[in-house]
Amino acid sequence: MLLRPHCCGIVRSLFNNRNHNKPRKLLWRSVSSAAMRLVQFHRLGDGGGIRVGVEQGEGLGVVDLKAFDPSMPSTMKELLELGDQGLECAERALSSGQFVLERSHIQLLAPVLAPEKVVCVGMNYRDHCLEQNAPIPKEPIIFSKFPSAITGPYDDIILPSESEEEDALSYVAGFTVANDVSARDWQMKRNGKQWLLGKTFDSFCPLGPALVTTDAIKDPHNLALRCLVNGESVQSSNTDQMIFKTEALVSWVSKFVTLTPGDVFLTGTPPGVGVFRKPPVYLKKGDVVECQIEHLGSIINKVV
Amino acid sequence: MLLRPHCCGIVRSLFNNRNHNKPRKLLWRSVSSAAMRLVQFHRLGDGGGIRVGVEQGEGLGVVDLKAFDPSMPSTMKELLELGDQGLECAERALSSGQFVLERSHIQLLAPVLAPEKVVCVGMNYRDHCLEQNAPIPKEPIIFSKFPSAITGPYDDIILPSESEEEDALSYVAGFTVANDVSARDWQMKRNGKQWLLGKTFDSFCPLGPALVTTDAIKDPHNLALRCLVNGESVQSSNTDQMIFKTEALVSWVSKFVTLTPGDVFLTGTPPGVGVFRKPPVYLKKGDVVECQIEHLGSIINKVV
Repeated sequence: MLLRPHCCGIVRSLFNNRNHNKPRKLLWRSVSSAAMRLVQFHRLGDGGGIRVGVEQGEGLGVVDLKAFDPSMPSTMKELLELGDQGLECAERALSSGQFVLERSHIQLLAPVLAPEKVVCVGMNYRDHCLEQNAPIPKEPIIFSKFPSAITGPYDDIILPSESEEEDALSYVAGFTVANDVSARDWQMKRNGKQWLLGKTFDSFCPLGPALVTTDAIKDPHNLALRCLVNGESVQSSNTDQMIFKTEALVSWVSKFVTLTPGDVFLTGTPPGVGVFRKPPVYLKKGDVVECQIEHLGSIINKVV
Repeated sequence: MLLRPHCCGIVRSLFNNRNHNKPRKLLWRSVSSAAMRLVQFHRLGDGGGIRVGVEQGEGLGVVDLKAFDPSMPSTMKELLELGDQGLECAERALSSGQFVLERSHIQLLAPVLAPEKVVCVGMNYRDHCLEQNAPIPKEPIIFSKFPSAITGPYDDIILPSESEEEDALSYVAGFTVANDVSARDWQMKRNGKQWLLGKTFDSFCPLGPALVTTDAIKDPHNLALRCLVNGESVQSSNTDQMIFKTEALVSWVSKFVTLTPGDVFLTGTPPGVGVFRKPPVYLKKGDVVECQIEHLGSIINKVV
């Protein structure tokens, strides 16, 4: 089992750029320019369900959106489906300075749960290709995780018992941090060399801590990112190493499938991946893994 | 682009058989033994949304479940999530003989839309392996389609502009027919040889015409199945050729991921697939494809 930090885009609106009869049409394009850190959380101790909130800043208090406006939905996916109306309400909630929950009173969840698709990209960091002596891909290499692999930003990772268009960025609601955990034996040697199975175990897609809206990030392709295992840095790079940038990936994938609000893109991992180390390094029970991306935050997951 | 009929299982309840901390627990096990053909449909002309119904027989009138009991949900996925309560209500609706819609007044949809996962199995027919001179796989080969690839039993297929536990069967709600449409160049030669992209174009997973409940089928592993292109038979076999049977597949996949109500399994395709013909045969615009499975029905899709 191995892992890799990804700079992760979350789709905001229906998108399909195939140039023929479209089974689903573009519904709306957002004009909101809100810079926000949207989260999903449970309130501790009240047995309540999922809520959507807005962070007052990274690691700071969280404004409870539904407390601010009871007509607002309880999940990020539903909020995204509302389009601008939802984002504008979240802005007003943040501005109000009211209905703020302290961090000690909540548990953060992945910012999106149950997306229709988790789209992943292989070999998308130039330096990651170089370390493997692998050719730079001419086209994105796409694979997927099932939505059920998503787990929260601080939740446990459960070991298996076995082991181009610039316009396209306007369809992206924001960015977050993902850990693309992999069971390498399953990915590389079994399952007919199709990667999916080794990637999609429950809990193998930690995601979070927030959906950071696009406008909150000056340049998503110039962010430092790091992975630490038990506090030791094992991967360190910058999103400027990405071969296909977020807008190219969104545009590319939308040639094949209709993207819907809440869809998640894992945009690639930088060098240092354990399997290419000499000797190779694999996660083991008890390891604590932290993936950090500048301006987006950290996710910290224990292997159990 | 090619296609293949699959005998297709649809998951009924949460299922995860990994033998450690389970992120999602088994919620219920059905005791209903209803033999039914459940469908999803639109009523023509009234602009209404998706409805769930029960066929009075293959191709016969459809009992509108929500008309019978307004407290019932409008989608198959929600109905499955209700467990026995939903299936028992469907039974009562069928017995009532009331609220029957004629076929000419409805349009049938895929029996499940927006499942969390569409799990597919490669190389799962012994004769399909033999025709390729390929070894019989020692383990199931799993790949996926995104839920957005699902299209109705009679809807168009849209060409891209480019081109072990016996117990496990109790988690299966029923069976239906699927057409695993593939863009072979994308599946075999591009995308790092990961199959997903060539499999998951919008509309590449026609599904239907009904979810036929498990108890309506004496032996799901002894059903004739056929694929016809423009009326000519191109694939003909029997589900007795399956290497891994439905229960083995459900059990296998549940070692990796939690299965949820509405999840779809495409369990493999028999010989005759166009790409292995000499010369190879590919679908083209205007072709009409029919996939038939004994006792389950037919799906008929035009390529546009």
